[in-house]
Amino acid sequence: MPRLPRIGLLLGDPSGIGPELVATLLSGDDLDREAQTIVIGEPRVLARGQEIAGTALDVAPIDRLNANDGVGDGVDDGPGLMLLRGPEIDPAEAPIGEATAAAGHYVLDTFRQALGLAQAGELDAICFAPCNKQAMHLGGLAFEDELRFFVDVLEHKGYVGEINATGELATTRVTSHVPLRAVADLITEDAVVAAIRLAHETLRAGGNPHPRIGVAGLNPHAGDGGIFGREEIEVIAPAVERARAQQIAADGPYPSDTVFLRARDGAFDAVVTMYHDQGQIAMKLMGFERGITIAAGLPVPITTPAHGTAFDIAGRGTARVDALREAYRTACRMARQRS
Amino acid sequence: MPRLPRIGLLLGDPSGIGPELVATLLSGDDLDREAQTIVIGEPRVLARGQEIAGTALDVAPIDRLNANDGVGDGVDDGPGLMLLRGPEIDPAEAPIGEATAAAGHYVLDTFRQALGLAQAGELDAICFAPCNKQAMHLGGLAFEDELRFFVDVLEHKGYVGEINATGELATTRVTSHVPLRAVADLITEDAVVAAIRLAHETLRAGGNPHPRIGVAGLNPHAGDGGIFGREEIEVIAPAVERARAQQIAADGPYPSDTVFLRARDGAFDAVVTMYHDQGQIAMKLMGFERGITIAAGLPVPITTPAHGTAFDIAGRGTARVDALREAYRTACRMARQRS
Repeated sequence: MPRLPRIGLLLGDPSGIGPELVATLLSGDDLDREAQTIVIGEPRVLARGQEIAGTALDVAPIDRLNANDGVGDGVDDGPGLMLLRGPEIDPAEAPIGEATAAAGHYVLDTFRQALGLAQAGELDAICFAPCNKQAMHLGGLAFEDELRFFVDVLEHKGYVGEINATGELATTRVTSHVPLRAVADLITEDAVVAAIRLAHETLRAGGNPHPRIGVAGLNPHAGDGGIFGREEIEVIAPAVERARAQQIAADGPYPSDTVFLRARDGAFDAVVTMYHDQGQIAMKLMGFERGITIAAGLPVPITTPAHGTAFDIAGRGTARVDALREAYRTACRMARQRS
Repeated sequence: MPRLPRIGLLLGDPSGIGPELVATLLSGDDLDREAQTIVIGEPRVLARGQEIAGTALDVAPIDRLNANDGVGDGVDDGPGLMLLRGPEIDPAEAPIGEATAAAGHYVLDTFRQALGLAQAGELDAICFAPCNKQAMHLGGLAFEDELRFFVDVLEHKGYVGEINATGELATTRVTSHVPLRAVADLITEDAVVAAIRLAHETLRAGGNPHPRIGVAGLNPHAGDGGIFGREEIEVIAPAVERARAQQIAADGPYPSDTVFLRARDGAFDAVVTMYHDQGQIAMKLMGFERGITIAAGLPVPITTPAHGTAFDIAGRGTARVDALREAYRTACRMARQRS
């Protein structure tokens, strides 16, 4: 009998709102009853989170999962919740509301542990509470962001990208953290096809068998027939055609100031944008601070809330759990889809 | 005694929703009671609009306004409504829902008439119902858009630009209908200052004595301290400083995916963007189809609804008048401010 899908749930930066959010999430009715949720982290950090959140959770930490039978010490094969001891950190070393090297180091080590378990086939998806980029850099992060770190740890060679999703709509972009003046030269047919395919496969992995994908143009009015730029005609439209030939329901290019209106009206499940702000302006106005980010294209699905560690309100127990709940549910859905 | 402010109200393209919208507007309670509203157009086109809208308006057309005493034949000095005969067109030459050279020609001639009256000091603001670009081109428009046509007719030399406004928020942009790859080189300190100043002066002309202006960056995360582009540091921030030295309440540059959230929360009255879609993505998601466009920087304020001629629903009397009402009110406010 195959084991149940397993989701690794990470506490995030100990100094941010992550631990209290995880505590809140676990105390509600959100626990997936058809999966095993493995909280991975320092039990004292979770305990502090529970104290802040005012929740209690009676779960004894275990020291390891067992790959062979799906059973570790204290882990049975049924659905439910486990707490797997993560890297050690004294909560006093990670004061609430501060970016510290200790916390960043802890976060990176927890990622390594979870990714290792995923590589060993013991986890089917990972959901992590917010981490702090500054702390991670202090703690030794040698990459621009955690996605590149995952790629490095997993020694992954394929195409990866960030997918941003609100409840209804996902986006991914062909270019990301590059100067605007560099964007146009990076819009190649291969890059556009890869981004379309990433959106397609990620949405399918999330349980949508036929995702509809709108593709944005690069230029104002999508070039207006070539008057304000020819990338739509020479690059993006051919890329959309290639994707369609691969049975992907891609459509476009549409002017970027109308493609999100169409999406909001229900025409698309995902929008592929050409550059960072094209998608981010729209998603933030559409409530993306309550949305999630998916590290897409990796061998294991990884989700996280779109918001950050919110140091300014950490420790008060007032942070809203909605985005973490959505990230957790998406991870569960993606884990189930893989099993 | 100075005469009352005078607003020229133009029917727009005879084949679109313009005439029926003007008829609807005039039949409601929207007529400005402290101004003279001069409808300028072909009486038979207005009559067809009234028929469609199901409204009746008992106003006899006059043939001219008189600059000397503010009184034409039938025009008195009090507030109210007048119908000034515009260029002749047989409505049969401009069938509902079609772009025709006849309609385009009529529209351009009406613009010329209204602009001439403004130059002669007989109009203080102009508001026009939607025109159709294709029809105008068929009718002889030799420019990219009507703004360039106005500049040409008025022989205006100063800086002009389009301001887009919803009820709460205005935007203008440093670059507009150019390919995305051309944008970065067009972001100069002078160009940014000119756009900030245009927003400042237009909002003041609309009755806001102290407009607060947020300025967007060019690059993702506004360059993130120069990592993803240096235009924020080298060009935009100095431009904001220059504007502030001129007593303009400009602020920024802010990342373009957060500046509109701040604006929506009430921090700014206007946002100056660096390129077309930066502003248009946000404004359209924020309901700009019910907003207005101001041809700004000209000697006479000119306003129009943001939406088009809507040929698909023209003639049914179902088009919503909200945006024209807002454009008319803004024109009245700007006319009063000038008087």
